[in-house]
Amino acid sequence: MKERTVKETAQRLLQCESAYILIHRSPDGDCIGSGYTLLYALRSLGKKARVLCSDAIPERYHFMLPEAETLEMFYPDLIVSVDVADEKLLGDSLLEEYEGRTDLCIDHHISNTGYAKELCLDGKAAAACQVVYEILREMPVTITKEIAACLYTGMATDTGCFMYDNVGPRTLHIIAELMEAHPDIPYASINRQMFVVKSMGRMKLDGILTNQLERYLDGACTLVCVTQKLMQEYGIDDAELEGIAGFPLQVEGTEVSVVMKEREDGAFRVSMRSADRVNVSAICQTLGGGGHVKAAGCTVSGTAEEAKRILLDAVTKGMAKA
Amino acid sequence: MKERTVKETAQRLLQCESAYILIHRSPDGDCIGSGYTLLYALRSLGKKARVLCSDAIPERYHFMLPEAETLEMFYPDLIVSVDVADEKLLGDSLLEEYEGRTDLCIDHHISNTGYAKELCLDGKAAAACQVVYEILREMPVTITKEIAACLYTGMATDTGCFMYDNVGPRTLHIIAELMEAHPDIPYASINRQMFVVKSMGRMKLDGILTNQLERYLDGACTLVCVTQKLMQEYGIDDAELEGIAGFPLQVEGTEVSVVMKEREDGAFRVSMRSADRVNVSAICQTLGGGGHVKAAGCTVSGTAEEAKRILLDAVTKGMAKA
Repeated sequence: MKERTVKETAQRLLQCESAYILIHRSPDGDCIGSGYTLLYALRSLGKKARVLCSDAIPERYHFMLPEAETLEMFYPDLIVSVDVADEKLLGDSLLEEYEGRTDLCIDHHISNTGYAKELCLDGKAAAACQVVYEILREMPVTITKEIAACLYTGMATDTGCFMYDNVGPRTLHIIAELMEAHPDIPYASINRQMFVVKSMGRMKLDGILTNQLERYLDGACTLVCVTQKLMQEYGIDDAELEGIAGFPLQVEGTEVSVVMKEREDGAFRVSMRSADRVNVSAICQTLGGGGHVKAAGCTVSGTAEEAKRILLDAVTKGMAKA
Repeated sequence: MKERTVKETAQRLLQCESAYILIHRSPDGDCIGSGYTLLYALRSLGKKARVLCSDAIPERYHFMLPEAETLEMFYPDLIVSVDVADEKLLGDSLLEEYEGRTDLCIDHHISNTGYAKELCLDGKAAAACQVVYEILREMPVTITKEIAACLYTGMATDTGCFMYDNVGPRTLHIIAELMEAHPDIPYASINRQMFVVKSMGRMKLDGILTNQLERYLDGACTLVCVTQKLMQEYGIDDAELEGIAGFPLQVEGTEVSVVMKEREDGAFRVSMRSADRVNVSAICQTLGGGGHVKAAGCTVSGTAEEAKRILLDAVTKGMAKA
């Protein structure tokens, strides 16, 4: 693996004729935003490009997609992944085809495993979209309205609407530049869709979860478990669960929040969030997962009680180090 | 009333020897932030200054206050109000003393009634703090860490953490400048306290309110009523209710949210929020209230059912105009 600067990455993209852009499974605003930004940029230069994802793009993000997607087949001379820290996160269907084949990875996760032949990584960037923006500035590409909407959405979603400490002056100057160039993008409406609007089922689920919050370690760790049964009862799907990871973090005094989501196979997909001092990426790494310092995840097997014990043990050890 | 530019206002402040700074009742992040910014700025120039409010400053905002407040009495040669759109909003105890006596008002509400002798109004500014920042740039004042924390908090809170459409490039450039000058302010922790953390009582109340949401006008208007009984049952006070106004706006399809809060005297303090097109300030004005286009309020008397009928009637008329 070779590390590449923003300039070298721009050159690499300019040299290709056609690209497949791989984004991670359970796609979020940042990987979709950075993936489609790249697609629009490459196409504006007369190149062929397609975004590939193991999962369907949730409807709330469809405004970022091209209005009429061309389905012409082509064989790419570049396979580039964006916002994919670990090859495993490509998901089964992409892995089957592209395992070990990523030429270039553009990312902002310090935990990036270096699976691609070339890596453009800025661990201080708030979002992959911020890295992609810097790369675009080194290319003869116009920041069109479509691109600006994608970049905004990625940076807004990965920062919790500019709330987290990954926001720096550079992030804000970029957002200001996007707004100056495209005052007609409905930024506030995008934010409302991303951060505020919930289905009635999700609202009711949140109400139920409030009564199921479990507090451990003198209240420093707040945990909640979303079972398959609950999801079926309130008729909500995975896409509607977005943002649930931060739910227990609302409780006063919480340092680490843990959300266990029961998968269909019975294992638990775990999301951890840190309020301030605790490095949840390190905690999740001890359980085979990873992520950012304040937002990470892992998967734990066993019964709910067994999984809880494993998680609380790891959190206790992790907090002792903080 | 004379309208004053930012420069003229800076001159006016530089000329005074001592000032009382009046902020509105039920103080929020913006009036506290802009009030204390002015206090720190004037004191740094050797002038005397005090912030006055009819209500106590909620604890979550105490980090903006001077560590040890001097209580020396003085008679001010300037009475300046910040973020106070209408003299009535000073609240009873300040009105008793200062009605008709405000020399200078610094504000960002287009609905400002012009009660002060001089008015520095920027209706496009995201927050009063943004106007105060521009004024400070015309004065020989250093943006200290205290001042930056106040300005940040005011601009963050009045924009819902940069979520609403009052955020423009200027707001973001200012925030970036504050971050560049003071990278050591815990911005993310401030945001967590302002936007995320809730008491367990408030979390449970939110859960209950989810089941009491009433939808009208084909779902375009979502309403909820917070009774004195509910507040007592969950042991929460007015300060803990902050942000409740936006609660019904989470429901998919909602254009106007209405939160009725029963006062101790039985009347209802009403907060209206607009998702997008509807001007709730105009609606509230028909009921004797006012505010911003997307965030306004009024007070309605009668039984809960009578008040609802009055409110829904006003919302129906207002939506017909949108």
